[in-house]
Amino acid sequence: MTTDLQLPDFDDVIAAHERIAPHIHRTPVLTSEYFNKLTGAELFFKCENFQKAGAFKVRGACNAVFGLSDAQAKNGVATHSSGNHGLSLSYAAGRRGIPVSVVIPRTAPQAKKDAMRGYGATIVECEPSTSSREAVFAKVQEETGADFVHPYNDPRVIAGQGTCSRELHEQVEGLDAVIAPIGGGGMVSGTCLTLSNIAPHIEIYAAEPEQADDAYRSFKAGHIIADDAPVTVADGLKVPLKERTWHFVSKHVTDILTASEQEIIDAMFITWQRMKIVIEPSCAVPLATILKNPEVFKGKRVGVVITGGNVDLKTLPWMQS
Amino acid sequence: MTTDLQLPDFDDVIAAHERIAPHIHRTPVLTSEYFNKLTGAELFFKCENFQKAGAFKVRGACNAVFGLSDAQAKNGVATHSSGNHGLSLSYAAGRRGIPVSVVIPRTAPQAKKDAMRGYGATIVECEPSTSSREAVFAKVQEETGADFVHPYNDPRVIAGQGTCSRELHEQVEGLDAVIAPIGGGGMVSGTCLTLSNIAPHIEIYAAEPEQADDAYRSFKAGHIIADDAPVTVADGLKVPLKERTWHFVSKHVTDILTASEQEIIDAMFITWQRMKIVIEPSCAVPLATILKNPEVFKGKRVGVVITGGNVDLKTLPWMQS
Repeated sequence: MTTDLQLPDFDDVIAAHERIAPHIHRTPVLTSEYFNKLTGAELFFKCENFQKAGAFKVRGACNAVFGLSDAQAKNGVATHSSGNHGLSLSYAAGRRGIPVSVVIPRTAPQAKKDAMRGYGATIVECEPSTSSREAVFAKVQEETGADFVHPYNDPRVIAGQGTCSRELHEQVEGLDAVIAPIGGGGMVSGTCLTLSNIAPHIEIYAAEPEQADDAYRSFKAGHIIADDAPVTVADGLKVPLKERTWHFVSKHVTDILTASEQEIIDAMFITWQRMKIVIEPSCAVPLATILKNPEVFKGKRVGVVITGGNVDLKTLPWMQS
Repeated sequence: MTTDLQLPDFDDVIAAHERIAPHIHRTPVLTSEYFNKLTGAELFFKCENFQKAGAFKVRGACNAVFGLSDAQAKNGVATHSSGNHGLSLSYAAGRRGIPVSVVIPRTAPQAKKDAMRGYGATIVECEPSTSSREAVFAKVQEETGADFVHPYNDPRVIAGQGTCSRELHEQVEGLDAVIAPIGGGGMVSGTCLTLSNIAPHIEIYAAEPEQADDAYRSFKAGHIIADDAPVTVADGLKVPLKERTWHFVSKHVTDILTASEQEIIDAMFITWQRMKIVIEPSCAVPLATILKNPEVFKGKRVGVVITGGNVDLKTLPWMQS
């Protein structure tokens, strides 16, 4: 680990992979003749929707949880996340048998709270505002002494996410490019960390909703720009870059591409229809940008990270459009 | 092939497998820790929803189409089916480059007609009645001289479907039982044909909607009983057994189990939610019956045939319930 920003290095990815292997799936890579014809590229879908807890986030969460010493682990872990990170950290802590607290807005869906409780989490509700979340979270940490595992701006989490592209690189020969959705940048940073070490010739693209394009604008401006309460169907991608993820994104990403809400929903729909897999809106963003920018990918072998499959099956976005 | 009923034998399955291999997927087998815990059994899901044209039916259809001599093939093939068989036969004929006519009620969903046309089929509409369908189909056959490929009561089709359990048996060691949905009985007959030859100790269960339980009642009565216009969400399972499928079902099936509409919808929902795969209502019936009869399957290694994934994503059954 380098010192200034506490950034992970590739040895951390290797250590993470060994540490988390008993607790995660080596997820399969699927292909689709239909999408290859449609795009003119060869697409390889790395299916983290089949991952434990339904998303890649379990890689970073397990790396953090199983990397704790027994003394550290005794006080448990804590985070604030109403999404896949909260669920993944609950899974990891439950698996190790240590306490986990998740601070979550009282307005979050009951199903998400129930799923976290199902893994053994203590749910602590806050008001749906940043100030309330921070205050409640500080209190939880003070009372429990729990280790804070940030959803993405944490070297252990970034190293854990880096194991995904390491597998992809082993599973698919001759990749020319990899594309993943970008929110806070944990998956993209892990991808940068791994590929810049083992296959620096592979291009790395990040895909983002037009309506939450802070990473795109940051990338073009050369410094972090945070969005003010973006609204997008890709609800996993609303959060801003932080200093650790900005480091990797600014240094190694080839380009960031964006797609509209309708393009994201359309890409999600045809993925379900043609590939028969359940994917979240967030992981339809890469395919949406590939369909929008065929000239960038034509003739290339492209790894597409399907980040997760946790979606409310009773309120699908094409039902409302 | 034995003579009296023109029944396929296991050599026909082997020949079918070789014939269709270039045109189908060897589909993956998925497992789910969640469902294993829930049922007390070890379940192995053979994912024919990832099959070409989205369903196992393409096995039988390809076997029929690619088994024709060039002289026979010239006049093409024809069938009546608004479901997966029509789609699969269209795929197979399109792949061989021969004509295919599908007689389909004018009331069938436009999306299905479009999908068949997409593979090159000629759609011939009839009224939604048996008499109209038969009259229109007779006319099509007379005009084209096409070879009639029945959806299931055809030895070539049964032999083709038998390749699925042959793969499953290769992919999973030590199976104790296999369960598949039953409508006309093509998949179950193919399963009987294959397993009775290569692994006769493996139990074979068929799963059927309570509201279309003609196979169940036939099995108990010892002769074919046909339902009069059954209504079920599992729309692939409405058709009755015919003499060839009855032969295999009556001879080799261990038992037929049934599930209610709500149990089928619930099983479909949790499959989507937990396994992140898109499956049709029909292929949720086996899981529904396993959940309903845990004592039958407890402690066993059970192959579950996921027959297809062609579903209208805009009208999901849990949206209406």
